[in-house]
Amino acid sequence: MAIEETTDEAELLAAVTELGAALRELVAVSVTTTVGPAELRAAAAQARAAAAGLAVSRRSRDQLPALDDPAQFRRVYNPVSGVGSALAPPLAIRRVDGGVEAETTLGLPYEGPPSYVHGGMSALLLDQVLSSAAHAAGLWGMTGRLELDYRRPVPLETALLLRAAVGGRHGRRVTISGSIALAERPDDALVQARGMWVTPRPQQVEEYFRSITDAAGRPSRPGRPSDATAVDDGS
Amino acid sequence: MAIEETTDEAELLAAVTELGAALRELVAVSVTTTVGPAELRAAAAQARAAAAGLAVSRRSRDQLPALDDPAQFRRVYNPVSGVGSALAPPLAIRRVDGGVEAETTLGLPYEGPPSYVHGGMSALLLDQVLSSAAHAAGLWGMTGRLELDYRRPVPLETALLLRAAVGGRHGRRVTISGSIALAERPDDALVQARGMWVTPRPQQVEEYFRSITDAAGRPSRPGRPSDATAVDDGS
Repeated sequence: MAIEETTDEAELLAAVTELGAALRELVAVSVTTTVGPAELRAAAAQARAAAAGLAVSRRSRDQLPALDDPAQFRRVYNPVSGVGSALAPPLAIRRVDGGVEAETTLGLPYEGPPSYVHGGMSALLLDQVLSSAAHAAGLWGMTGRLELDYRRPVPLETALLLRAAVGGRHGRRVTISGSIALAERPDDALVQARGMWVTPRPQQVEEYFRSITDAAGRPSRPGRPSDATAVDDGS
Repeated sequence: MAIEETTDEAELLAAVTELGAALRELVAVSVTTTVGPAELRAAAAQARAAAAGLAVSRRSRDQLPALDDPAQFRRVYNPVSGVGSALAPPLAIRRVDGGVEAETTLGLPYEGPPSYVHGGMSALLLDQVLSSAAHAAGLWGMTGRLELDYRRPVPLETALLLRAAVGGRHGRRVTISGSIALAERPDDALVQARGMWVTPRPQQVEEYFRSITDAAGRPSRPGRPSDATAVDDGS
């Protein structure tokens, strides 16, 4: 991690990670349990109690989490790669020769057709992996266009490999391609993606993000990475 | 709801819905809380206790939930529209003249760029809404191709309108288009989608879903809807 970590920060990150993992497991069990209504309601009451304990102090939409650093692309609650997000598998995206890759195995919370990954989930994951490929190449942008070709269904509970690499650059636009495949057959794409990412003009960055601050209240705009720390270097 | 509901089923659905809502709120609070490590760890312990209560009895990947009916497209844990899914907003997709639509307001769990919806989340939601448009038209298929054009960022905590309608049909293929817009400016698309859905051939349905059973252990294959009950008729 590129930002200098204090002991407090490391402790907070460990606790955010622990809560993310616990919620992820709770979500997974909630869609597979076959207990009856009374047990479901008891779990709901426990969930409400946990939420009440967390709700005593909350940030607004415009204030970034204390652990986040948009210039470094550290986003602990990112819904695909964030360790603190119960929605995220989470994907650990690492830099490799020529791009990025990530392994994951998706459980029943991600289901579309019975026993297969929801087609939109494949799109969600690929959008993030393509975006991370841009970051890894020292670029920053927002999705401008995303095209997905679904060749075969993506199975649940099966090791998957996601890959992405930057193609060409044309001014503020960059083309990126990627795929989802079985980890055991990495070159046989189940879903292929091709995207065009666009770096907003400075006046757009100002327009979109003018009210965003860091946890200390200082203005904070996303932008070109000084280095690509959202992406592990694989070490 | 088209399936005949017994009292037991209605009670189970109410409990699944209550747990889904409680978990959704817990997930939302977990990404916005600013409490310290001790409080985060306490919430994690409560989440683990809730999961342990649910884990005493679980279904396998191949067994559909008791409340589901794939022929009717009732899928209570669908990650976009399922009332029992903590990942889902959930979208309540209703049938309208010429297609389907849904309103939603997305909170911080769905964030990509600061204060905006993750581009992949827009893709996830649109994939489901396009799929529901096919169901509403009496068709069934899996995503074959999905193209998304991102015109403007989609804001969090803002009322959104999603729409989709079936275009042409060509044998087993159907083209569907849709959009995300601000609810107050429904004709000014922020994201536009165009997709091609493919109905699998009977031998593919057998290949993909041969091991799927309902909660009673009877073989259960997805297929063309007898009617499109995943989509409310708006009444």
